Amino acid sequence: MKHNVAQKLIKQHLISGNMKPGQEIGLKIDQTLTQDATGTMVMLELEAMGIDRVKTEASAQYVDHNLIQEDYRNADDHLFLRSATRKFGIYYSRPGNGVSHPVHMQQLAKPGKTLLGSDSHTCANGCMGMLAIGAGGIDVAMAMAGEPYYIKMPKVLGVKLTGKLLDWVSAKDVILEMLRRYDVKGGVGKIIEYYGPGVKELSAMDRHVIANMGAELGATATVFPSDKEIKHFLKQQGREEDWIELKADRGAKYDEEEHIDLSTLEPLIAKPSSPGNVVPVKEIEGESIYQSYIGSSANPGFRDFAIAGEIVKGKKIAAGISFDINPTSRQLLEQLVENGHIGNLISAGARMHQAGCNGCIGMGQAPATGRNSLRTTPRNFPGRSGTKEDSVFLCSPETAAASALTGKITDPRTLNIKYPKIQEPKKFETEHMFEAPSPKEDSITLEKGPNITSIPDFKPIEDNFNLPVLLKMSDNISTDEILAGGSRVLPFRSNIQRISTFAFEMVDDNYYEKAMKKRDSGGHMLLGGSNYGQGSSREHAALAPRYLGLKVVLVKDFARIHLQNLINFGILPLTFEDKNDFHKISQDNILEFRNIHQSIQNSNTFDVKVKGTDHTITVRHDLTPRHIDIILQGGIINWIKQKQS
Amino acid sequence: MKHNVAQKLIKQHLISGNMKPGQEIGLKIDQTLTQDATGTMVMLELEAMGIDRVKTEASAQYVDHNLIQEDYRNADDHLFLRSATRKFGIYYSRPGNGVSHPVHMQQLAKPGKTLLGSDSHTCANGCMGMLAIGAGGIDVAMAMAGEPYYIKMPKVLGVKLTGKLLDWVSAKDVILEMLRRYDVKGGVGKIIEYYGPGVKELSAMDRHVIANMGAELGATATVFPSDKEIKHFLKQQGREEDWIELKADRGAKYDEEEHIDLSTLEPLIAKPSSPGNVVPVKEIEGESIYQSYIGSSANPGFRDFAIAGEIVKGKKIAAGISFDINPTSRQLLEQLVENGHIGNLISAGARMHQAGCNGCIGMGQAPATGRNSLRTTPRNFPGRSGTKEDSVFLCSPETAAASALTGKITDPRTLNIKYPKIQEPKKFETEHMFEAPSPKEDSITLEKGPNITSIPDFKPIEDNFNLPVLLKMSDNISTDEILAGGSRVLPFRSNIQRISTFAFEMVDDNYYEKAMKKRDSGGHMLLGGSNYGQGSSREHAALAPRYLGLKVVLVKDFARIHLQNLINFGILPLTFEDKNDFHKISQDNILEFRNIHQSIQNSNTFDVKVKGTDHTITVRHDLTPRHIDIILQGGIINWIKQKQS
Repeated sequence: MKHNVAQKLIKQHLISGNMKPGQEIGLKIDQTLTQDATGTMVMLELEAMGIDRVKTEASAQYVDHNLIQEDYRNADDHLFLRSATRKFGIYYSRPGNGVSHPVHMQQLAKPGKTLLGSDSHTCANGCMGMLAIGAGGIDVAMAMAGEPYYIKMPKVLGVKLTGKLLDWVSAKDVILEMLRRYDVKGGVGKIIEYYGPGVKELSAMDRHVIANMGAELGATATVFPSDKEIKHFLKQQGREEDWIELKADRGAKYDEEEHIDLSTLEPLIAKPSSPGNVVPVKEIEGESIYQSYIGSSANPGFRDFAIAGEIVKGKKIAAGISFDINPTSRQLLEQLVENGHIGNLISAGARMHQAGCNGCIGMGQAPATGRNSLRTTPRNFPGRSGTKEDSVFLCSPETAAASALTGKITDPRTLNIKYPKIQEPKKFETEHMFEAPSPKEDSITLEKGPNITSIPDFKPIEDNFNLPVLLKMSDNISTDEILAGGSRVLPFRSNIQRISTFAFEMVDDNYYEKAMKKRDSGGHMLLGGSNYGQGSSREHAALAPRYLGLKVVLVKDFARIHLQNLINFGILPLTFEDKNDFHKISQDNILEFRNIHQSIQNSNTFDVKVKGTDHTITVRHDLTPRHIDIILQGGIINWIKQKQS
Repeated sequence: MKHNVAQKLIKQHLISGNMKPGQEIGLKIDQTLTQDATGTMVMLELEAMGIDRVKTEASAQYVDHNLIQEDYRNADDHLFLRSATRKFGIYYSRPGNGVSHPVHMQQLAKPGKTLLGSDSHTCANGCMGMLAIGAGGIDVAMAMAGEPYYIKMPKVLGVKLTGKLLDWVSAKDVILEMLRRYDVKGGVGKIIEYYGPGVKELSAMDRHVIANMGAELGATATVFPSDKEIKHFLKQQGREEDWIELKADRGAKYDEEEHIDLSTLEPLIAKPSSPGNVVPVKEIEGESIYQSYIGSSANPGFRDFAIAGEIVKGKKIAAGISFDINPTSRQLLEQLVENGHIGNLISAGARMHQAGCNGCIGMGQAPATGRNSLRTTPRNFPGRSGTKEDSVFLCSPETAAASALTGKITDPRTLNIKYPKIQEPKKFETEHMFEAPSPKEDSITLEKGPNITSIPDFKPIEDNFNLPVLLKMSDNISTDEILAGGSRVLPFRSNIQRISTFAFEMVDDNYYEKAMKKRDSGGHMLLGGSNYGQGSSREHAALAPRYLGLKVVLVKDFARIHLQNLINFGILPLTFEDKNDFHKISQDNILEFRNIHQSIQNSNTFDVKVKGTDHTITVRHDLTPRHIDIILQGGIINWIKQKQS
């Protein structure tokens, strides 16, 4: 059978399941990537699982998100993460090395491999002929422990590229064109595979730009073939030996097909406040701006900064404009300094920031009230910049640099200069600041500052028990209502005891006290409506209530990711067989659960009595045998511990 | 009569008073400097005063403190400040241009001039043969309006420098030696003047290092002569015409004398948590460190970064160390990039930050819990780094760079390398990003984001009135208790209405509501003990209660700066003639003030009846005629408005 690149990558890593779109498959994971914002919890999960050393070919921990260090907590996290990498055998990329995705590409990415990362833009490394997927923290922890990663087999959308980009049009405009055509949900359930004669016109870093923002299309992954351009990139990195060729079989088919003639594209821009809100730059030319911002994993390459440097060279940016340059890696910064591009940017008026995610994830560089900000970053969701009522546009470095000069949104083609040709360095310096896994040493312990605590031990659910209903909630309760995000709560993400004090505070600010009272006398359960647990994938929304004694959640129906998180942390997720029974239970009622272990293994439904009433309710679960096993072990941490022992 | 440099500068600017130590003198101010953290209030004060254009020779507004921009507020402040500079005729230094003190030195400093700045390290520009003094915001606003600056005539401490620094010893070690000898209060009430044959061995920027940390000695100012080194510096800046020679008359005397033989100094370090806690580096060698930090106005020069670059060139810093480089100005950064020094630092493992104050004022880069941080910054007060229980050491760039390489506190003399000789650029690029005052245009308005409001109008105190005592407080009430600092309250520093909601919340959290109730029906007064208003000079501690209707403060005695702030904002400060009368008044009593205008002009004491009791209290004021004038106008803003109209 003829395979495309996505199918080849999946086939080579298939552990279980059938490669039919929609069916669950288990994939072997070769490499993992974690960043500091998600990584501390992943490391605590590895600790709780009793993992000795990771079982992947390469796992890397990057410190790129929380670099501001307003108090001890970020710095403590960095030390903790470094100690964890030494203990578990993980690569460590220190603060200042740059953003995970380009650094991983430079240091570790290999064609033909799978990469799972606890960052939604992990898909960027699909540019290297890899299957690179973003996932939740515990999924990545499981992969590090050697477990397969389970997903539904995606469809493959083949995008045929032909032609060649014109001057002033670059890779960002290609992905913006995809977003113009497909909007932010057009990639859901799909792997996007680029192929055709136009691919060779795009460098490895150009492909990174396109693969990165596959996340904004909602795609599971983006893949490119591994060809001469990838070989060239690996040679620049001194890793030519890591290259293999990987291309679709001649005549391979795609589940869906698309075509882009690169030569027809023009400079595009995503207007506030969605990456899918794309129009040609010329349509909105002339609007005045506050900020022009270049960097992030969505435009990380040497050429992305160099071209901006060449555009502003010898000129001065407009008065009052904040021209923010966020280098993406130490290696690139070194070369950009050496080749004069950084000098050109500084002389023109740039604010040079440290290599890292910075403003792309709302860590500083927020724009002024009501002012337009042009960014080469991947997202312009409302408020993501740090300013609530922000007005962020996404565009190419060419458009951002041109607009910095004029102080207005500017189609770079209207600048009266020749399109600069960028000469890439033949070879990049080896990155000595990227620490390889140290040999196993029993003496290495995890360095935990006062804000980092271990994940508590959780006991498996009993067979017979009574549970009080602590909260009865309406439909559409989100994970933000279960456990808020934001700067007040998230700093405690590595401290379950502390973060649990915020649980459900928006629903009932006595929940924490009430739950703590019941915690040692049997715990509690919760009642909810439809779409329970919608929103952010935050696993603390399961972990914190679990710590407070939550055993059962009974609702009309669940949002998908939160359901998985409940199972992962050993909470029994049940639905009403008859939704009208919701009204038969009141807050503070006690439900009598009997013979649960047998019940959930034998059938999808069983009965529960409401104490002190005549009501008996039929409840339902939709757990797979693996899920049941996880719940009966008390959660995935216990499950893997058991399995590995 | 023979004069030293300090006396010459004062004599040339003397508007009132007598140059006898301790007596009040009024000085003409030629230049002012404001930074963003204090500048927004200064600009609002100018607005409230009805000032059209500043009357100084040069006033400059720098944006260097709040550069993180976690939300709209910092960015809005920047836009507001720029609009204010355009309106009032002020130089504007945009974010990214660097720290006020070195940028001012590069762009505007002139030998023979006076400089008043709303930043405590304004004294740094004393290196240029200027009289440069740090002051409160409203003092600077008054100077911008053309008013004299009043201080008590300081003593002059002459420090004779002889000899020449040895290799691995630099300017920072000179000021650390002064701190070792005098500690943090040894300079109070003094101008420190350096003279003698050793001076010529120190470049202008070396002198900046020494003058800057005169603030840590508590000195009013530090002055150096203006000699060939200053001429050379101005030539590098393309401003040779601004040079004049300025030196002490042969045989001039000093009130106190000191001597340092530069050739006897060795690398020194200030241990936690006081700049005066100085020991030789070799005494504490070998302690492991978390952070090595180079930058700030206390080591801003080209050579300070270049020497660090040369020390780490071709090497790698120790694993796990955070090597933070904070460039001090765009101009220096440009040159350091061009000459390869920044490249050397990055390759060795540095985290490059944007030009600005950053971690020096606790804006990021906080060290990890309990870990040692070596910094070239001027202060290591407890918690200033952002980490509560921090452990910050102050040292030279040589010591910081050497320690980054070893991961331990290291005397740089023990490195087995030749002391690098730094070649300074002959000429620095002109800074085009420093905006000169724009021509007066009536169309220019102040751009106020939602968090910036004008200072409310205040009415003068009436002649006859009754006031309820809203709070009766004990001794030693600090300005922190009156109006807290910190990140919860200070973001509202440009919003008097909003910040006043925090007034006295630590004393009585109903104060705001109670005061608001009385506000429109005559206002209120406060009762306090001894040392009322001690601590931080924060003028909001007077301004916020004033907005809430505070008219009179009656205490046993006042702390000096808060007393001045009360007068500035038109609040009548009174003390008990007999301290035992304190017990005759209770909270919520009403005091009857009669014939006040005449009373305070005619005598230092007058009587006040406690309503509904038999008590009559004799109260006292120690106001000068100028003070009385200010109070009768309703505060200094009204006073200057009247004067200028």
